[in-house]
Amino acid sequence: MKHSQTRHALCTLLLAATTTLGQSVNAEPRQVILIIGDGMDEQQVTIARNYLKGANGELLLDQMPLRGASQILTIQDKVNGRPIYVADSANTATSMATGEVTSRGRIATSAGNDQDLTTITEIAAAAGLRSGIVSTASVTDATPSAFAAHINFRMCENPDAMVDITYRDIPLGDCSQDLKANGGKGSIAEQLAESQLNVILGGGSKHFVPMAEGQAKSVAQVAQDNGFHLVTSAAELSAAPVEQRLLGTFSESTMPVRLQGEGGREAEEAEPSLLNHVHPYLGDVTMPEPMNCEANPEFANVPTLQQMTDAALRHLSHENDRGFFLMIESASIDKQSHERKPCGSIGEVEQLEEALASAMAFADSHPNTLVVVTADHSQAAQLIPEESLFAAFPLPTFTPGKVARINTPEGSRMAVNYATTNFMMEEHTGAAVPVYSNAEGIGRIAPFIRQPEIFTITRKYLGL
Amino acid sequence: MKHSQTRHALCTLLLAATTTLGQSVNAEPRQVILIIGDGMDEQQVTIARNYLKGANGELLLDQMPLRGASQILTIQDKVNGRPIYVADSANTATSMATGEVTSRGRIATSAGNDQDLTTITEIAAAAGLRSGIVSTASVTDATPSAFAAHINFRMCENPDAMVDITYRDIPLGDCSQDLKANGGKGSIAEQLAESQLNVILGGGSKHFVPMAEGQAKSVAQVAQDNGFHLVTSAAELSAAPVEQRLLGTFSESTMPVRLQGEGGREAEEAEPSLLNHVHPYLGDVTMPEPMNCEANPEFANVPTLQQMTDAALRHLSHENDRGFFLMIESASIDKQSHERKPCGSIGEVEQLEEALASAMAFADSHPNTLVVVTADHSQAAQLIPEESLFAAFPLPTFTPGKVARINTPEGSRMAVNYATTNFMMEEHTGAAVPVYSNAEGIGRIAPFIRQPEIFTITRKYLGL
Repeated sequence: MKHSQTRHALCTLLLAATTTLGQSVNAEPRQVILIIGDGMDEQQVTIARNYLKGANGELLLDQMPLRGASQILTIQDKVNGRPIYVADSANTATSMATGEVTSRGRIATSAGNDQDLTTITEIAAAAGLRSGIVSTASVTDATPSAFAAHINFRMCENPDAMVDITYRDIPLGDCSQDLKANGGKGSIAEQLAESQLNVILGGGSKHFVPMAEGQAKSVAQVAQDNGFHLVTSAAELSAAPVEQRLLGTFSESTMPVRLQGEGGREAEEAEPSLLNHVHPYLGDVTMPEPMNCEANPEFANVPTLQQMTDAALRHLSHENDRGFFLMIESASIDKQSHERKPCGSIGEVEQLEEALASAMAFADSHPNTLVVVTADHSQAAQLIPEESLFAAFPLPTFTPGKVARINTPEGSRMAVNYATTNFMMEEHTGAAVPVYSNAEGIGRIAPFIRQPEIFTITRKYLGL
Repeated sequence: MKHSQTRHALCTLLLAATTTLGQSVNAEPRQVILIIGDGMDEQQVTIARNYLKGANGELLLDQMPLRGASQILTIQDKVNGRPIYVADSANTATSMATGEVTSRGRIATSAGNDQDLTTITEIAAAAGLRSGIVSTASVTDATPSAFAAHINFRMCENPDAMVDITYRDIPLGDCSQDLKANGGKGSIAEQLAESQLNVILGGGSKHFVPMAEGQAKSVAQVAQDNGFHLVTSAAELSAAPVEQRLLGTFSESTMPVRLQGEGGREAEEAEPSLLNHVHPYLGDVTMPEPMNCEANPEFANVPTLQQMTDAALRHLSHENDRGFFLMIESASIDKQSHERKPCGSIGEVEQLEEALASAMAFADSHPNTLVVVTADHSQAAQLIPEESLFAAFPLPTFTPGKVARINTPEGSRMAVNYATTNFMMEEHTGAAVPVYSNAEGIGRIAPFIRQPEIFTITRKYLGL
């Protein structure tokens, strides 16, 4: 055994020994706070760092003592299906919530044979631990719902969206087999309302308005009857009694984001001159005007992700000697990237940073708290040169996609490119995503993991 | 102090203690092997993993005990210039070689005032340590040259390319001030030939053919006179006397890559039908035919990156009680991405993996060897969905860029998109890049670093 190996082995041994010691002498509760930046790949992190802290600056993420990579896995919708190399938020949340690889669009159900996959919050509840889900998306959206619901198609978010789901007459999917009338568990909202979760906070109030299937009451009423205290504003959230289970929905659908492009602008196409259409070496090109990011006025009407995180931590830790699992999603890094709005994504990373600050402060005062931050999949946005690497060539070169040229607070300019598709929504991409953790993750999270290991690491840490 | 903090602090203490112990009782030489995957960002690593090992597989990179991220820094070409958010290989290699942030295109010279920046190989030589540079590019290319040469413009690779450098009559740059006639050090090839490096291996023989400025002999002859043993084939490389300094150039320019697209194919544009040109919701689209990656026959004519690495390690470690610094570049991850050739990039990651295997084997038998793998900057390639996330919509959606649909050995298909520019070469991108190391890096390389820290970590490890 070499010196370096000896040293490493000793360190691992020491970690293991003190961990065992910690568990055996320490009766304190154990908790895992899993923060998911939806679509938060290395491009998104760098774009946010450059804007929020400057190129030489450091995010709170960058100060985490552990940083690794997580390989995303998904398969065809059949038993033992072949690998698919780009995932969606439904199958990836299922990986993290259940430890199983499934197909795109599925919420905690298996590929091909549609079996329910047990989630970490269900295992936690069975063992007497509490659980919560917090998101800036609808709480019925793919990422939060996969931690507590089971359905074959992510768009079956409420009782009115279970059969023949269409968008402008285009058939998108169907969850008939999950209707209660057919022996199923009903829509995602109904499953959340009937769940054993202790905290549910985010957007998506509209999914709790419809009547629950076969009942004379709304889904919200079902939740209330199941012991949830309902809130719809930041004021109500902070006043909510900590001893009661909590369902907060603060917007109809996805919550408004913090930042937006000047006047709501998004990435735009370059405009080549007429002559350039004749030959790509001729004429010239007009690039979209640079823009600033500005505050989105609608953001003031909802609680921040940090406020929701603080409330969740209060409720989950109140007189709790067993511990808890909390999933916090910063959803619109992804959603704004689909819409080619880099300012929106940047503001959402800022929200994630604030939620992380709260999680780290909680971990400081509560030993045995593992804080993990990761993404579910990579996204379309690319930081490209504002001035081409080939600027010496007197040719009108430009991206074939859409670009936003953002003025940064440190006085430079950043070009963000979106060019995965000509569809109205950008595609995801397939790169492995970052994983960060506090010191509790050292020795527990390998430098390279596959996404379902987030589940096994969580389960093991909680002793479940 | 909390439990988790105590544990972490103890571990850090143990590492520090054993490190000090190792240094004080051990007179063995110390060495750093820095492996640079040019353009090897997380997209490139994932694409290579999926192809070479399968989506569930693991690269050798993935087995490294440390993995972090490195923020890339570059500035305008002026003293205290503002940040530029996308870099090139010249300024990034300068960061790693000298610890200084400079502007794009510069080789170990400062932004604005063009001062020479001392490189790690110069510091090593002054302290009696050996150094080597190995690359699959020309040895005079930006990445290798920044470790041993100083010039204001990366294209000044030989004595005939110093003044008014043009490409098809387009002026690209000039290095007149570095002409020996003007008191400078001459072209990159001349500087390498006159350098104190012990090993120089790669492509670029054509840059050693011209006559050295003001001399009646070629640059190759200058190198020979300076003590370099010259080789040009794998056979000569393996037969080279280990006690002599070594200059090997195995191809005129960049070395041929291992893999290529079927029949030399690269990423191609989708072809929308006539009707689709009328309106994007109409008509249909023909995507490029899927392709296999195949062996590039020209690759058989040159030594592999691993063979060059093995030779470099033999020469640098032979009867060496002081240690060495070795930089190994897998250059064509980047170069093939510029040309939209994903198979080429994949084959180059495979070459990097083999070189890493040799480096790790060397570290196994030579204590005090720090092996670091990183990239210099991110690149254009994106792994996008082979079947759109929005496939339910009956619309002819496609990337506005160029795409290669690659059949993977595990029986699936991977779509790789290039869409940063309509120019003949793709742009770089700005995301932070991965950093990996062997166990020697633990406690020495933080989870998040800025690229110039590669220099300070190296210098410190070597005790310089």
